[in-house]
Amino acid sequence: MASMTTLNGSRFDRSLFESVLKRRFFFTEAFEIYRLSPNFKGDNRGLYDYGPPGTALQTNIENILELDCSVLTPELVLKTSGHVDKFADWMCKDPTKGEYLRADHLVENVLESRLSRGLSGPCKDSPKLDDAAISEYNDILAKIDNYDGPQLGELITRLDIRNPDGNGEVNPPIPFNLMFKSTIGPSSAAPVYLRPETAQGQFLNFKKLLDYNQGSMPFASASVGKAYRNEISPRSGLLRVREFLMAEIEHFVDPENKQHARFSEVCNVKLPLLDKEKQLAGNTTPQTLTVGEAVESKVVDNETLGYFLGRVMLFLLKTGIDPLKVRFRQHMDNEMAHYACDCWDAELLTSYGWIECVGCADRSAYDLTVHSKYTGTPLVVKQVLSEPVKVEEWEAALEKKLVGPRFKRDAKAIQTSVEGLDQTSLEQLATQLRETGAVTINTPVLSDGSTSVELSSDLLAIYKVTRTSNTREYTPNVIEPSFGIGRILYGLLEQVYWHRPHDAARAVLSLPLSVAPIKVLIVPLSAQPQFIPLVRKLSARLRSLGISNNVDSSSASIGKRYARNDELGTPLGITIDFDTLADGSITLRERDNMTQLRGSEDEVVQAVKNLADSTESWEEISQRLQPFLGQGQED
Amino acid sequence: MASMTTLNGSRFDRSLFESVLKRRFFFTEAFEIYRLSPNFKGDNRGLYDYGPPGTALQTNIENILELDCSVLTPELVLKTSGHVDKFADWMCKDPTKGEYLRADHLVENVLESRLSRGLSGPCKDSPKLDDAAISEYNDILAKIDNYDGPQLGELITRLDIRNPDGNGEVNPPIPFNLMFKSTIGPSSAAPVYLRPETAQGQFLNFKKLLDYNQGSMPFASASVGKAYRNEISPRSGLLRVREFLMAEIEHFVDPENKQHARFSEVCNVKLPLLDKEKQLAGNTTPQTLTVGEAVESKVVDNETLGYFLGRVMLFLLKTGIDPLKVRFRQHMDNEMAHYACDCWDAELLTSYGWIECVGCADRSAYDLTVHSKYTGTPLVVKQVLSEPVKVEEWEAALEKKLVGPRFKRDAKAIQTSVEGLDQTSLEQLATQLRETGAVTINTPVLSDGSTSVELSSDLLAIYKVTRTSNTREYTPNVIEPSFGIGRILYGLLEQVYWHRPHDAARAVLSLPLSVAPIKVLIVPLSAQPQFIPLVRKLSARLRSLGISNNVDSSSASIGKRYARNDELGTPLGITIDFDTLADGSITLRERDNMTQLRGSEDEVVQAVKNLADSTESWEEISQRLQPFLGQGQED
Repeated sequence: MASMTTLNGSRFDRSLFESVLKRRFFFTEAFEIYRLSPNFKGDNRGLYDYGPPGTALQTNIENILELDCSVLTPELVLKTSGHVDKFADWMCKDPTKGEYLRADHLVENVLESRLSRGLSGPCKDSPKLDDAAISEYNDILAKIDNYDGPQLGELITRLDIRNPDGNGEVNPPIPFNLMFKSTIGPSSAAPVYLRPETAQGQFLNFKKLLDYNQGSMPFASASVGKAYRNEISPRSGLLRVREFLMAEIEHFVDPENKQHARFSEVCNVKLPLLDKEKQLAGNTTPQTLTVGEAVESKVVDNETLGYFLGRVMLFLLKTGIDPLKVRFRQHMDNEMAHYACDCWDAELLTSYGWIECVGCADRSAYDLTVHSKYTGTPLVVKQVLSEPVKVEEWEAALEKKLVGPRFKRDAKAIQTSVEGLDQTSLEQLATQLRETGAVTINTPVLSDGSTSVELSSDLLAIYKVTRTSNTREYTPNVIEPSFGIGRILYGLLEQVYWHRPHDAARAVLSLPLSVAPIKVLIVPLSAQPQFIPLVRKLSARLRSLGISNNVDSSSASIGKRYARNDELGTPLGITIDFDTLADGSITLRERDNMTQLRGSEDEVVQAVKNLADSTESWEEISQRLQPFLGQGQED
Repeated sequence: MASMTTLNGSRFDRSLFESVLKRRFFFTEAFEIYRLSPNFKGDNRGLYDYGPPGTALQTNIENILELDCSVLTPELVLKTSGHVDKFADWMCKDPTKGEYLRADHLVENVLESRLSRGLSGPCKDSPKLDDAAISEYNDILAKIDNYDGPQLGELITRLDIRNPDGNGEVNPPIPFNLMFKSTIGPSSAAPVYLRPETAQGQFLNFKKLLDYNQGSMPFASASVGKAYRNEISPRSGLLRVREFLMAEIEHFVDPENKQHARFSEVCNVKLPLLDKEKQLAGNTTPQTLTVGEAVESKVVDNETLGYFLGRVMLFLLKTGIDPLKVRFRQHMDNEMAHYACDCWDAELLTSYGWIECVGCADRSAYDLTVHSKYTGTPLVVKQVLSEPVKVEEWEAALEKKLVGPRFKRDAKAIQTSVEGLDQTSLEQLATQLRETGAVTINTPVLSDGSTSVELSSDLLAIYKVTRTSNTREYTPNVIEPSFGIGRILYGLLEQVYWHRPHDAARAVLSLPLSVAPIKVLIVPLSAQPQFIPLVRKLSARLRSLGISNNVDSSSASIGKRYARNDELGTPLGITIDFDTLADGSITLRERDNMTQLRGSEDEVVQAVKNLADSTESWEEISQRLQPFLGQGQED
């Protein structure tokens, strides 16, 4: 797969990297101490715990927060949203091993392995790949996300793709719904799912959000929380997990006006874009356009979508992502989620290849429409027009004098059902009523147990009216940037990881100060008691400035203590030594280049504050403070 | 139930209160728009969404964060922790209605209803309650949490307690496990549960946490996240929910030294304490002791537990809780969770009565011991002693020359099992081996499928040795303060809610500035364009000081806009009017007393900053700034 180099140009070694993250407790496999037990049944991969530095990093990355919606979601909601029927991956069973494999990953892994070995089969004596096969395989891989289940099945049969583990043939792909299911309440009658995304809660609350925003459009809601996907066969550590933290923004916008008021702020941001036509043509090289150019040339559909792509890029850069290791890839038509009409993924280059970290989807009016239609709750915006307009509309009227006596206590329910019909339905029903003299209308459960009623033209009339209206009613479109916090975190950690030249054991995480879990390490030269009050005072002073800091007064050498904290990504270190006792001066150390500066406590604290506020750079500070080459110097 | 008065002495009206919270979107029932659908099946109560002000308030209340552990938890972990067998409530089925009722709540509701009506049955012509019955009912209610299922069943039969809805008899109580169950992976073979508390993830990571803390004790980990309990019949709105946000601190401490280094900080904090003896005696009046007195008199067992009770009290007061509406109630023996050896609940007085909001449990070494025993992973602390001590210990030795040939490839597993035996087991086995000549040892699954092995005394010896040791090994005890964020939030909202005299429609939430979702409301006198740049500049200036603010430039009157934000609990308001255009002065308004002050923008911003930092009070600011009685005055 993709070849990665670290910040200082050496080869990226994932096992070394992961040992650092586990040693410093950025994360660990959940329930690790149970995993060796013979009674630990089933496939519990894809579950991770974040330790203190991982949790702090996660908090520093996500800083938008608004709604907090229920994770447990009744079946009816997800049936309506389409997830119960369509939120599935294709999987193949290997009947020999009893193992389940995700079909697209199977094809991808086998073809990549064949390409890298130049052979058309799994054995050493398999025939060599010819040029036509190489070209076909590369073409398949470039558009792997565009195949549906039957197409993957065709590839598996035609190219004789088998389970690499054991070389067994696999059954044809079948869909596997990715939602975790449970039941609620003691009767166990009600199925619920763990939400697969945080979005639905925001859509269901649209009316309340619009009210809270005093009816003004456009606006956005945001939600940060766990979501769940029952992945078929999670590998790839933190990148494919079954429980993950998401941050989703739902930006509600007028479909006839997708301009964005703050577009100028991102207009000149450069984006490496890989659109769907390129991918279908087997091309994987993105073109770099500014957001403004991309929207103008219609590569990106509209200003609001462009605005969010720009904001995502700026966010990733601020987090510490390397601009050369980001691309924006457009979804292909078969790949798109059932609710999306356009989608661009921000992908990060990792040792696992390009990995989706932020999705930017235009969900159009899909979700609001289906929920509104099902529940009969209008999820619309009423815009007051500056000039009244003429509107042609279908209307339905019941002959109440006849309907009341005929349907008795069901009459009210029938009337409500008729009033709830939308324009499209009314138009269809009008034709049907004219042609056949009767129509069937869906209703809530009626007194005879039925859920529909037939109405003939003596009971129901449907006709067109022209009204003058001061308002315009529309269902907003939704532009949704959706952040996979764990994936961004993992991609970032890979990208900032390197080790000191000629010493693979001395790892460094070059996290930017803004996201580093701890900003400053305070190290007294030794464990002698006279340093204790100085250390406490300095720690409290930094904390009062909002600068998180850790004290390491263990007996290890200064160099060792710094090395330990380089692995935690702590950007700055302050040493307190015997000269501090004499003249109050302290040493400030920079993590990446290990240079040290000396100044009074006031000077150094001010320097730290300026670095934290990004008002001064290390270079600028170096010109004010004295270089330091004395005690505590590292080898 | 408990009679509540609001801050200005009027009667607390819950329906008015809830309508304010829903109107201002602090929260809503989740999936509200689906709840009227006839297809919305099953019992989906107890699921809520927090809107923007509720979410912000929640964030302001919880500000400890360290670990982020998996919610999905394999069965084996929760089997070991005891939750699969014991985490249950007792419920009764009403076979006529097909309804399930929580047994203790049923008894409580019926007896309370009888007491308040003075009648011994549900009907108007039921006999009057005599003094003996009144006294017995009160006694039962005082210790209602101490009854187990069979005892509740006895009460239900003896006192003829029936379902108040329909007066049907109910079946005897049966236990209902409160954990939500699901399955993981495509084979569906592996049961998982949604965690019922965040604690287990912290216990399982104990070794890593101790390493991260460089082996030093005591220390605490913390986790903030969702937990799930499949409540039998949730009513009481936000107080009894099936999905909730918890913050749990696990403080790991040496069982032989439960002193706390910062005890002096809370020693003089006053606690209203209701211990278990009082409750068993039918007494519900707490006694007020300082933390120091409570620990000294052994009402509270130890310094660390006392320290956390004091911290919880200070936290609640800082959040805005009324000190007269808090009490600390000790769990009775039958009430205690299976893992706890002592537990005190901080309870808040609400319109639903006293409600547990923070539990402070001493879980002793229970959790670390059971997980360590099951997995064979030592979850212990090795303390280096200043002087070596003599230790008598049991040791086991296998006769390897015989064991190897006899058990072949199982020999390693048997040796590991023998090495994993703890002192208690070794002592028992030594006796058995001496008496019967053989013992049975549990093992992992061996090659013949068995999970134990018999070892005779020619293969195994168990004997006592005396060693000189420089270290002491112990399993830490855990003191756990566990915060129900949603319950604290709800209790707080009830306690700070009131309305202006003589106008129930003008509600106020007197949230302290530190937790209010929005600190400052900015209102331009009118929607005229010349105010816009001033409003934007002021809003940005406050934001740069970290002071959250909202602008309301709608066309409503100033009074109405203030009233709307009083309901959101916004403590301060700033008005920009025509005088601002002339001389730059602005008005600062205080929410609770509606007084207004006038000063330059610099003066007012400084005042807001001081109020936010708690360095100045409104009274102090009133002496510096001019009183204002001009435009925008409220009636």
